[in-house]
Amino acid sequence: MDKFIIIGERIHCISPAIRDAIANRDPAPILERAKDQLASGATYLDLNIGPAERDGEEIMQWGVKLLQENFDNVPVALDTANKKAITAGIAVYDRSKGKPIINSADAGDRLGYIDLAAENDAIVIALCSKQGVPRDNDERMQYCQEMLEHGMSLGMESDDMWFDPLTLVIKGMQEKQVEYLEFIRQLSDLGLKSTAGLSNASNGMPKDVRPVVDAVLTAMAIECGLTSAILNPNDKHLMDVVKTAEVILNHTLYADSYLEL
Amino acid sequence: MDKFIIIGERIHCISPAIRDAIANRDPAPILERAKDQLASGATYLDLNIGPAERDGEEIMQWGVKLLQENFDNVPVALDTANKKAITAGIAVYDRSKGKPIINSADAGDRLGYIDLAAENDAIVIALCSKQGVPRDNDERMQYCQEMLEHGMSLGMESDDMWFDPLTLVIKGMQEKQVEYLEFIRQLSDLGLKSTAGLSNASNGMPKDVRPVVDAVLTAMAIECGLTSAILNPNDKHLMDVVKTAEVILNHTLYADSYLEL
Repeated sequence: MDKFIIIGERIHCISPAIRDAIANRDPAPILERAKDQLASGATYLDLNIGPAERDGEEIMQWGVKLLQENFDNVPVALDTANKKAITAGIAVYDRSKGKPIINSADAGDRLGYIDLAAENDAIVIALCSKQGVPRDNDERMQYCQEMLEHGMSLGMESDDMWFDPLTLVIKGMQEKQVEYLEFIRQLSDLGLKSTAGLSNASNGMPKDVRPVVDAVLTAMAIECGLTSAILNPNDKHLMDVVKTAEVILNHTLYADSYLEL
Repeated sequence: MDKFIIIGERIHCISPAIRDAIANRDPAPILERAKDQLASGATYLDLNIGPAERDGEEIMQWGVKLLQENFDNVPVALDTANKKAITAGIAVYDRSKGKPIINSADAGDRLGYIDLAAENDAIVIALCSKQGVPRDNDERMQYCQEMLEHGMSLGMESDDMWFDPLTLVIKGMQEKQVEYLEFIRQLSDLGLKSTAGLSNASNGMPKDVRPVVDAVLTAMAIECGLTSAILNPNDKHLMDVVKTAEVILNHTLYADSYLEL
């Protein structure tokens, strides 16, 4: 079994510090978050530059080079609604430590992100939705199959498509969580790779409740066979949960000090 | 889906305070632990009096009456290797809040505990082992079926047999944890009730590591369909995990204050 992959989520333009750093091409805040996330166990760094309609190409190239030059060609997830910015970013991307991830396609308007991945030999995160929240797992699986067939018709390997079940907020969609977990298990049973933004489930909950919800859902999702997640690796409790899940599922060897490793 | 059942484990003669309380027929330490466990969400109280070869019958009757008279006929799990003590305990047991649990039968020397349950219209915890650690899930399932058939041949309802997959220590049997979880899922798929002493898995680990291991394994086991557990309800973090798992699996309704309920 492959090691569970952490995609660090903290370089995201929704954060004012990162938004300003991007606007001013100021490396320091970005490098600091990159360093912290890698030190805590991130494999990939997500680089979310937002819609970046104006100068997205330049920004993405700047960001990719900044991260890779400073952190030994760390693999990056290129995250923006601007497709040209993704192409531009991949043009300067060094693959020696891993393929780029394109974040993200879906089965609707963003199906073209799969084409982009196929053209650029990239991994693509493929959200199992088309418009809004899928009604049930039949619908999720239909989108998954549509995207899988589309990618394979373009010559992609299925391992380069990481399917995202679409994490739903518990407050409001509590009754849909069991199905969500079952879908992760279905992906796993099919031998497909998966990823998820697990902490979306606890959105809107009180601050003191979110950590335990994130922890329990993460443990459950990994038990169901999730192969990667987009999360905050600097959340020590959450990373302890991930490491422990890896030990229980026998993906990493137990040592008394495993939480420190 | 039924609510997850907590069997409070803290009235156990392995604790010096409880051993002394039993020896001296001193109610206070037992009542205190009973009160704390019930306040924190235990449904059943386990009453483990040890082998109690000499005066087990008298002790069990004293303990059962003590708990039930002080806590509104709280249902009790009668836990001892002395079968006569269990019969004696059940003779004074009030069923108005739930059948007694007999803890525990196995498929070997303790098969007779199923007869005891059948004779006394009790629930029985049925450990899926015969001698030592089962080799694999085929062996676990064979014992499960043997015990199930035995119980049903004696007129028991399958819902009154709570199968215990036999929790194994991670330090030493790390590679067996996945199968353990799969077995819980198999029991669930068969519609059988289950219980487990989950914290056995973290035995021998450093003190600061055990809580996260207990939490992650508990979340995983509940996701796999475990229907009850023998645990310490006064471990606030663990109970938060159980409550959260219940919310995610939609067994209890979410409220912002659910951890306080």
